[in-house]
Amino acid sequence: MRVKDEIKQEALFEATVKLVNEIGFAASSVSKIAGQAKVSPATLYVYHKNKEELLVSTYVRIKQLMGRAVLENFDGSRPIRDILKQVWSNIFSFVSEHPAYFQYVEQFSNSPYSELVNTEEVEAYFEPVIQIILTGIEQKIIKDVNFDILAAFIFFPVMALANPRHCKNFEMNRENIGTAFNLAWDAIRR
Amino acid sequence: MRVKDEIKQEALFEATVKLVNEIGFAASSVSKIAGQAKVSPATLYVYHKNKEELLVSTYVRIKQLMGRAVLENFDGSRPIRDILKQVWSNIFSFVSEHPAYFQYVEQFSNSPYSELVNTEEVEAYFEPVIQIILTGIEQKIIKDVNFDILAAFIFFPVMALANPRHCKNFEMNRENIGTAFNLAWDAIRR
Repeated sequence: MRVKDEIKQEALFEATVKLVNEIGFAASSVSKIAGQAKVSPATLYVYHKNKEELLVSTYVRIKQLMGRAVLENFDGSRPIRDILKQVWSNIFSFVSEHPAYFQYVEQFSNSPYSELVNTEEVEAYFEPVIQIILTGIEQKIIKDVNFDILAAFIFFPVMALANPRHCKNFEMNRENIGTAFNLAWDAIRR
Repeated sequence: MRVKDEIKQEALFEATVKLVNEIGFAASSVSKIAGQAKVSPATLYVYHKNKEELLVSTYVRIKQLMGRAVLENFDGSRPIRDILKQVWSNIFSFVSEHPAYFQYVEQFSNSPYSELVNTEEVEAYFEPVIQIILTGIEQKIIKDVNFDILAAFIFFPVMALANPRHCKNFEMNRENIGTAFNLAWDAIRR
């Protein structure tokens, strides 16, 4: 039973991402999402109270997957710069490999549904990264400025660069990813 | 007659932004947009060949307004750092003051409609900024890396920081805007 449940939940998750990206939040009704996932609306309601809850949990699920990807090969014993370079390169891979997830997240973040997210739950997925930045500030390696300002320079440029629509004129190969990380590091280091 | 035309065109522009942000591209039909703008669909077709053309020209119009705002107080005789600080602060103001335009642009850039844009026309609105960055590279003030990488560090973080949803935990006052610009500058300078 559990495996069957997970398959259905996964189908609902993927269907929500696909449909919202194609036709937007407003037009994505519960019945259309259920149809796309090939489950009955009654089955959808077993897992999700209503459309809002489905949209929010889809966002949280993407953030969970992203958190896991970002923390791959995370080794807190290495120098802070090396740890952040690994994180940066993980974000690049995740966003490049899952443009649909990223598109959903961008739309979601600009929608009123984002008010319904438990932000502490989402931040917990990225806790080791947050901690390493705070440690860097304490050790006077990273600039002592507001965390959101640092985040805007570590995370936003890499998400932009991983979007093929932004980088039409050149290939983001290993060398260019390294070059771009150098800029991020110069932005935040003291 | 011309004034009346301009009022109608402006109404169509604002209606397109509002409706697409509320219900998405797919659900925003020509008749709904015309209704929102309080003009007849026939009038809409006087100015726009079809829905695609209306969506694309709305995007181009926003970029035009953004280009004008970004170039306010642009003085090419000043040091490059000062020019870019002015540009940065202009972008911050434009995005903060027009969140709906920015939301439209983000959605549009992730949609297949973005393939229909004449990118040279759009880039022309930002030509003086592009030129100043290229001059900075030539003068060995700015890092000699791919332009899109530099752009990701100058323009993306400021757009994120100008979005109130990103900066829930602190106020982007004059001091914080200056701090954030220092990070952008450290990222791109040699």
